[in-house]
Amino acid sequence: MPHITSVEVIDVRFPTSLTQDGSDAMNQDGDYSAAYVVLHTDDPELTGYGFTFTIGRGNDLCVAAAAQRAEPLIGRDVDVLCGDLGGIYRELQSDSQLRWLGPDKGVVHLALAAVMNALWDLAARRAGVPLWRLLTEMSPEQLVQAADLRYLTDVLTPDQAVTLLTRQEAGRHQRIAELRASGYPCYTTSAGWLGYSDAKLRGLCEKAVAAGYRHVKLKVGANLADDIRRCGIAREVLGPDGHLMIDANQVWDVPQAIEWVKALAEFEPLWIEEPTSPDDILGHAAIRKAVAPIGVATGEHGMNRVLFKQMFQAGAIDYCQLDAARLGSVNEVLAVYLLAAWFDVPVCPHAGGVGLCELVQHLAIFDYVAVSGSLDGRVTEYVDHLHEHFVDPCVIRDGAYVLPTAPGYSAEMHRKSFQTYQFPDGAYWTSLAAADRLP
Amino acid sequence: MPHITSVEVIDVRFPTSLTQDGSDAMNQDGDYSAAYVVLHTDDPELTGYGFTFTIGRGNDLCVAAAAQRAEPLIGRDVDVLCGDLGGIYRELQSDSQLRWLGPDKGVVHLALAAVMNALWDLAARRAGVPLWRLLTEMSPEQLVQAADLRYLTDVLTPDQAVTLLTRQEAGRHQRIAELRASGYPCYTTSAGWLGYSDAKLRGLCEKAVAAGYRHVKLKVGANLADDIRRCGIAREVLGPDGHLMIDANQVWDVPQAIEWVKALAEFEPLWIEEPTSPDDILGHAAIRKAVAPIGVATGEHGMNRVLFKQMFQAGAIDYCQLDAARLGSVNEVLAVYLLAAWFDVPVCPHAGGVGLCELVQHLAIFDYVAVSGSLDGRVTEYVDHLHEHFVDPCVIRDGAYVLPTAPGYSAEMHRKSFQTYQFPDGAYWTSLAAADRLP
Repeated sequence: MPHITSVEVIDVRFPTSLTQDGSDAMNQDGDYSAAYVVLHTDDPELTGYGFTFTIGRGNDLCVAAAAQRAEPLIGRDVDVLCGDLGGIYRELQSDSQLRWLGPDKGVVHLALAAVMNALWDLAARRAGVPLWRLLTEMSPEQLVQAADLRYLTDVLTPDQAVTLLTRQEAGRHQRIAELRASGYPCYTTSAGWLGYSDAKLRGLCEKAVAAGYRHVKLKVGANLADDIRRCGIAREVLGPDGHLMIDANQVWDVPQAIEWVKALAEFEPLWIEEPTSPDDILGHAAIRKAVAPIGVATGEHGMNRVLFKQMFQAGAIDYCQLDAARLGSVNEVLAVYLLAAWFDVPVCPHAGGVGLCELVQHLAIFDYVAVSGSLDGRVTEYVDHLHEHFVDPCVIRDGAYVLPTAPGYSAEMHRKSFQTYQFPDGAYWTSLAAADRLP
Repeated sequence: MPHITSVEVIDVRFPTSLTQDGSDAMNQDGDYSAAYVVLHTDDPELTGYGFTFTIGRGNDLCVAAAAQRAEPLIGRDVDVLCGDLGGIYRELQSDSQLRWLGPDKGVVHLALAAVMNALWDLAARRAGVPLWRLLTEMSPEQLVQAADLRYLTDVLTPDQAVTLLTRQEAGRHQRIAELRASGYPCYTTSAGWLGYSDAKLRGLCEKAVAAGYRHVKLKVGANLADDIRRCGIAREVLGPDGHLMIDANQVWDVPQAIEWVKALAEFEPLWIEEPTSPDDILGHAAIRKAVAPIGVATGEHGMNRVLFKQMFQAGAIDYCQLDAARLGSVNEVLAVYLLAAWFDVPVCPHAGGVGLCELVQHLAIFDYVAVSGSLDGRVTEYVDHLHEHFVDPCVIRDGAYVLPTAPGYSAEMHRKSFQTYQFPDGAYWTSLAAADRLP
């Protein structure tokens, strides 16, 4: 009966702003960062790792919030916690004083995600299985008990959720075998950052196609003439059958989004991602209606399940891009997958950043095996950044995620990595500060 | 030409949980708190004061975030800042790294509110007028320039906003004279906290009626039998012509909200406040349709202007209860008032907490004088708590806010108050800690 003995929360920041990796029309200079949580137990073989993702300043706020969120875990029995991951989620979430600062959004929610991600990682390690397997071995009732369905019962009751999951129970083993053979399909965003030159863009698109990708995503929204030229390059490299996605990172108001996307329609994008405020459900619905057959995608800033519920109710999106470190961990992610399946909207999780690819591979696999049972219209983001810092990095083969096999949620970083890039005291940042070269 | 020389941000917490003041079905034990910002200038006569409001734990997160938000102000020319309050708001708001943690919601947005509230206070002090007067002396163009209309232009363009404000320009002086005579109408929540006994509830309702109030608000949602009994007491004291409001503080899912409110319909509540998740626009619309003619009110947790835009678009609410310390200060509050007037929805600001009454009186007066030009259906919350800590506390006469006359946004606290209640190092908290009596 191991117990949680202590919690480490570490401010890890990578200097991505120096290379413009990750640059887009809204975020020109992000330093990809993680508020990284380590749950220690009195069993030296059993530790949980989790994080939320930020882009630099303010990562310290998530670290401080995660330390507060995790406090009630200290001294608790790991078997009890792992036996009721819905219960402990609800306990942490319902701290009414912290709730006031959201509810279920912003820094306190990102912090809840970091802590509960670590607890799910711990649960999978304790069971000796990768997280996707832990989830696919849970019964429909257990999954629904773990899912956060609060405020959703007007569209999906717990009983309906059980029915939905039960429908897919029979085929679970077969679908796992399929994914073992072919992997879970992904697309790459590494080619299209806004700060890259045309030559670099073309080279990266060519490299992506050569590596087996059928989808490529470009950042747009800063300058229309540039966007037309860059989309032309990408479409030329992809050929008429490849899928081009475009991503505006929220820079437009609704009328401008419609106008701009129509001006890029000749390049036949599969979707426009984040055309406007991530909070604007009715705005996305209006854009979707106006730019069809171009699809509308959003979700990386989708703050919680209540937002996604309404996105589905309003018919606002064609693709749901939930984020594994912004939603309140697996508990809330489960709810959004259930809603998406209920409304028959494909989930194509947001990834990239720090370690998000490592997390979402588990979720996408679980969705196919146990929730939607479908790969139609589904493709998970992949960005070729920072994987070297993870102990069990995701593996891509022929444009698909290979099923992870190590126990856990693939969230553990190398100690050397997080010590080097700890902010502001790690070796990397102190040497930059000494040279007066801090970004 | 004074400059901002330094920023103090102080964690002030009042021990309200000890008396159950502020208790409701969601928040049983809040310690009313403020992340309190003081902007110092090199003119010793000129200082700006502002804050955001929280209920205890996590106030430190807002303090840390406000310090980061305010950093770009240091060294800046006060005349330049006050000459373009829209510009500096947009500059602070668009820090892309902090934006990632929202956007426009949660801790980083509360912190933006605290800092910009202090800057508006500074601007009004510099002009030697109360904030409501500073605002009512701005031209329609100046107001629209200061307002945050980003993501709103699909329903309200800057030109339309100017037209709307211009319509009310002629009557401004007359309406100020009216409010000087009668004050701005308010209602009281002090009577109905959930933790109070029936006897205390009855006594407080009687006291409220005797003091001239025509509206009383009760907390509901913990236990239906209790609610029926308590509403009966309040209705009996108020008589058939008084207005009873009920407030569930988000405890229900949509179907439960509808059922519970219908069970209280016999007491003819004017509105049901916060029946469900504050993010659920379509849920509020469904509840409103089901419980009419009982009105639906929400907004104290309304995270930003994009949420309110959709509340209005969806016909989801009868009363808009914006919060002066949760929205991004006057800049975003202006946008919500403009939207509300455009959709003809009355704004009845949320107040109470720490100093919210002091702030919202200015906003309500401004709305009547310059935006809506109407008092129909409008009544501003008043809670009789913690005013003694403010240098220029609001004054209530015959159930109405008396027009403030001192320069500023009424946001300044007595130094002795914030020093005593500073957490955890103020005299109050250290003595509680010494006696091992921390809540």
